[in-house]
Amino acid sequence: MADTNPQAVPLKNVEIHDPFWSKVQETVRTQMIPYQWEALNDRIPGADPSYCIRNFKIAAGLEKGRHGGAVFQDSDLAKWIEAAAYSLEKHPDAKLEKEVDETIGLICKAQRPDGYMDTYYILNGLDQRFTDLEENHELYCLGHMTEAAVAYYEATGKDRLLKAVIRCIDLVDSLIGPEKGKIHGYPGHEILEMALVRLYRVTHNEKHLRLARYFIDERGKEPLFFEEERKKRGLPGDGNRIIRNSYHQADRPVREQEKAEGHAVRAVYLYSGMADVARETGDRSLSEACRRLWNDMTHRQMYLTGGIGATHHGEAFTYDYDLPNDTAYAETCASVGLVFFARRMLELEPRAEYADVMERVLYNGALSGMSLDGKRFFYVNPLEADPEASRKEEDHRHVKITRQKWFGCACCPPNLARLLASLGGYVCTSTPDTLYQNLYIGGTVSAVAGGIPVRVEFRSSLPLKGSVSAVVHPAGRGRFRYALRIPAWCGGKFSLLLNGEKADFQSENGYAVLDREWKDGDEIRLSMEMKVRRVFANPRVGEDVGRVAVTRGPLVYCLEEADNGPGLCRVCLPDRTVFRETAAEGLPENIVALSSDGFRFSLKNWDSDLLYADHAPTLEPCSLLWVPYYAWANRRPGEMSVWVHRFLSEP
Amino acid sequence: MADTNPQAVPLKNVEIHDPFWSKVQETVRTQMIPYQWEALNDRIPGADPSYCIRNFKIAAGLEKGRHGGAVFQDSDLAKWIEAAAYSLEKHPDAKLEKEVDETIGLICKAQRPDGYMDTYYILNGLDQRFTDLEENHELYCLGHMTEAAVAYYEATGKDRLLKAVIRCIDLVDSLIGPEKGKIHGYPGHEILEMALVRLYRVTHNEKHLRLARYFIDERGKEPLFFEEERKKRGLPGDGNRIIRNSYHQADRPVREQEKAEGHAVRAVYLYSGMADVARETGDRSLSEACRRLWNDMTHRQMYLTGGIGATHHGEAFTYDYDLPNDTAYAETCASVGLVFFARRMLELEPRAEYADVMERVLYNGALSGMSLDGKRFFYVNPLEADPEASRKEEDHRHVKITRQKWFGCACCPPNLARLLASLGGYVCTSTPDTLYQNLYIGGTVSAVAGGIPVRVEFRSSLPLKGSVSAVVHPAGRGRFRYALRIPAWCGGKFSLLLNGEKADFQSENGYAVLDREWKDGDEIRLSMEMKVRRVFANPRVGEDVGRVAVTRGPLVYCLEEADNGPGLCRVCLPDRTVFRETAAEGLPENIVALSSDGFRFSLKNWDSDLLYADHAPTLEPCSLLWVPYYAWANRRPGEMSVWVHRFLSEP
Repeated sequence: MADTNPQAVPLKNVEIHDPFWSKVQETVRTQMIPYQWEALNDRIPGADPSYCIRNFKIAAGLEKGRHGGAVFQDSDLAKWIEAAAYSLEKHPDAKLEKEVDETIGLICKAQRPDGYMDTYYILNGLDQRFTDLEENHELYCLGHMTEAAVAYYEATGKDRLLKAVIRCIDLVDSLIGPEKGKIHGYPGHEILEMALVRLYRVTHNEKHLRLARYFIDERGKEPLFFEEERKKRGLPGDGNRIIRNSYHQADRPVREQEKAEGHAVRAVYLYSGMADVARETGDRSLSEACRRLWNDMTHRQMYLTGGIGATHHGEAFTYDYDLPNDTAYAETCASVGLVFFARRMLELEPRAEYADVMERVLYNGALSGMSLDGKRFFYVNPLEADPEASRKEEDHRHVKITRQKWFGCACCPPNLARLLASLGGYVCTSTPDTLYQNLYIGGTVSAVAGGIPVRVEFRSSLPLKGSVSAVVHPAGRGRFRYALRIPAWCGGKFSLLLNGEKADFQSENGYAVLDREWKDGDEIRLSMEMKVRRVFANPRVGEDVGRVAVTRGPLVYCLEEADNGPGLCRVCLPDRTVFRETAAEGLPENIVALSSDGFRFSLKNWDSDLLYADHAPTLEPCSLLWVPYYAWANRRPGEMSVWVHRFLSEP
Repeated sequence: MADTNPQAVPLKNVEIHDPFWSKVQETVRTQMIPYQWEALNDRIPGADPSYCIRNFKIAAGLEKGRHGGAVFQDSDLAKWIEAAAYSLEKHPDAKLEKEVDETIGLICKAQRPDGYMDTYYILNGLDQRFTDLEENHELYCLGHMTEAAVAYYEATGKDRLLKAVIRCIDLVDSLIGPEKGKIHGYPGHEILEMALVRLYRVTHNEKHLRLARYFIDERGKEPLFFEEERKKRGLPGDGNRIIRNSYHQADRPVREQEKAEGHAVRAVYLYSGMADVARETGDRSLSEACRRLWNDMTHRQMYLTGGIGATHHGEAFTYDYDLPNDTAYAETCASVGLVFFARRMLELEPRAEYADVMERVLYNGALSGMSLDGKRFFYVNPLEADPEASRKEEDHRHVKITRQKWFGCACCPPNLARLLASLGGYVCTSTPDTLYQNLYIGGTVSAVAGGIPVRVEFRSSLPLKGSVSAVVHPAGRGRFRYALRIPAWCGGKFSLLLNGEKADFQSENGYAVLDREWKDGDEIRLSMEMKVRRVFANPRVGEDVGRVAVTRGPLVYCLEEADNGPGLCRVCLPDRTVFRETAAEGLPENIVALSSDGFRFSLKNWDSDLLYADHAPTLEPCSLLWVPYYAWANRRPGEMSVWVHRFLSEP
């Protein structure tokens, strides 16, 4: 089955040279990764300490002290190593590589003789390890360490960390599993599942795939493991067992899960692992579950920005069409995880819809997690923000108006770094006979299609303009299919030229497929209409009834106080106003802002002491300036809004 | 000063015979008071236990056991006694009076020799009494007990409870006060202030007024008492001292308080006490503060229903124009307290505005606290409700869709009972030369005006119709001013007839003032336009931008799922639809429902799997049925909404 499924063209075969994303990756490489190294070493003045390096130094016996930070603190370091690995793969950097090697040395020095490596239990008592899989994140940290180890091995060929995590996984495999006497458990916070499949793809050791599959298959079986574990720990088994376990997607077997529920990051990490296992094993019931959960999440529980997880209570999904804009959680990590899941769905079946969501998240809900300079980060990505509400309303306190230097729980910044540094791995998928172009990011892709090596040089003007081009270089004569995704945002309005002539293509699952014998230098030009579009939400989304949002190509736009003054909740966008491309003061030139006419409910004609009246407030014309959502909060702090009121004329 | 200020015509001089309110009072007398007696005795199956009577029995040595319920549990019993007293004043009832007398006997038996009477400390250790004025509600319970004692004394002439509370107040007065060696403190939860003034008006004992004034004057002085107390209790004095103390309106002296802040019930109880003290002492700086706080609260922080306290976090005010409909708290007790404050503002100065708010709260945000049968109660009074949100959204969990039988914290039901049972005391205020008709409730009012006793027989068709009439019976020849409030809801459209002829009147602070020599049987007819009005909120209220509400006379209307089906968030009300008076199925005949045309965003034309699109959702016509807000949730549970979308045409 795996052979007929698409697989992602791996990072090592993709070079990115893109006016938009290369700049982002440069920021990650030159700013985020070094900055986060400082953070992990507790050297950022005024930022919450990370304790990460310190914990490992203490565990390695190089320093004295107690474990600092959360039970999952190790994972921040693992994510950083992973991000550094991707960066090194494309940009050799002796200094960085030395830092990573030393860090890996430190991790190995901290590792116990039996392979155990989680600093929390090493420093707080090894006797308690594996006694609280529900909450204590050991398997989560191991999962991240595994991702880091494989990434660093693939980037540098160095296998020291790889061997270390394999020893730890052997330990886990000896303690957890179906066999009598083993713990019949699984991770409280998923990720080890997908990490094991990734490891398996390097080691080809069936044990690694088997353990991943065990975690997937065992999850949610009765008697519920976390309940049994709680009993052992003497915790009450109160009436909330379903809610408590659905938080971990562990209230029922994964194949019976109908809705995306619980902690959003956990959920998309689990679904990614499910998709990986389904792909490796050809398990149709599992891929069916992935498809069902994907649809539930992206068709009923996803913000326009691609953000998921509507509530800060448990960082969780709530229910269908419940997408509050001002109290949105939409954690950056959940966006990152949704990109993981999307790519894996593309590896189960080539459908442009998956890539559309991947693109939506990348350009909006994920990218908004970092400042333009790469040194400040959002954990929460609201679609409406008001400084006064965040200051004075308990329900809005989690909504920050400015990006933070670092977090006590700093899962998001390094997660974003590892995603962006490995972006090349998300551009294309391929089957033996087809190369799928899923993202329009400029660069070079090398793959084998139709049995011959092919190099595609790709150019993109996204998100500024909608034209892209590809020059195909087959290593010899050969027939294969080149499938270009037609993004939903162009509304089917595109032109496709082959060597300057109208191309003859088939439409297939949202792709335009060119099936021919390719000659070296064949050139494809795809022009997609990229006009400003008014977007409306399903009327079941109560929050957005009577509202409209503005998008252009893959970008969601928003209004900021910096450009439009306060009182954004009073703005109305007319149905027929012209949008003009312009620049926003204080934002880089290459960011396309949009100006439009608008109206705003006037305060002038309404006495501030008059709370209710039987005359309607009047509207006054105003001009509006829209900026890409990802770029918000890079200037002076203030209000922000994605959805604004529209004029509703009586039918 | 007191002489020139208006004063409320006391309950004993007012008989209510009103088609609307007599029915409510009958429900209170025949249902609520007996029902609550059962509740206080823990005899309501399936309801949270009250423990009230039980606590007193244990404190009196009649039973064994530990204190049950909250630290303020005694106050529920005090409120019930107060409600029973008002009821007995108008409706002698040997059985009820016997129950009250026995209860008072029980309370006196529980009282300590030194006068102390709070069961929480009697049962948990008297050594700790008065060590936590901030949180432990002893003075709050004493305040309620004082209100009950005065009410029962006024109703029956029996002074046993009165003497008991006076002994307890003497104890408090000996321990708390300005003198060296005394505690320089004040109540964490206010009410004793207004209770002491009420007591003073019976005892004329300066000590009682002085103590009330001390509590008012001392409050918020540096060093902040609650901080000193916390230090003594070894609690950290962290950085939140202002927030922590503004919760109790104790962060600064009351005369320097600019905004209604903190716990809403505490706030309006304090302001009521401030107004009482201001009235008794003629303290202008204090009445100024009352006016300022009144304006801040009612002009910037009050729901259309008269509800106050927008957030469930601390049951508190938030900030100007922050009035979320779906997460509203608007506690019933806060509405009750706002009525207290409004009457006291009317006793500081005759302004129709105060009575307008009093009427708004009574007919809407207060009355909604009880079911039509008087046996179920709301603690929280939202302006928008959705069962799914209440079930699944943590931020909405406090919003109940059905009224409850009772509460672990049952402050609201007996509070509502004591207000409604004493409604007569809120109808009129008078000065030596003027009788002010503040509420249009039918019945008989006896007062002295222009030096002669006057009896006014009043008839009202509110809230069904806008016509009222009064027949004046002076005890002899005499000139005085009869001031009839012209409610804001009639928009100045009214006719006033005196003995069938157009009356000659002066407009004064929102009243129509008839100044003449009255003859026995003079008849006044006031007809106020009572048409359905569309109401709009100040555009600074972000939640209500683009929305409209429906009112008729003093009543706010709402849509319920029972009449309109689900999806109320998708409803739009056209600007020019005709409203017809009708009846709502399942509600009593005498409740005027309103039918109108409307539109609703259609789900038919929108695929439930399509979350966002660049075509606007379509509207379909529908008919709407509106019911009075106070009557919602008396049928099958479902959605409710006060504010709906309106059509905004581009100017």
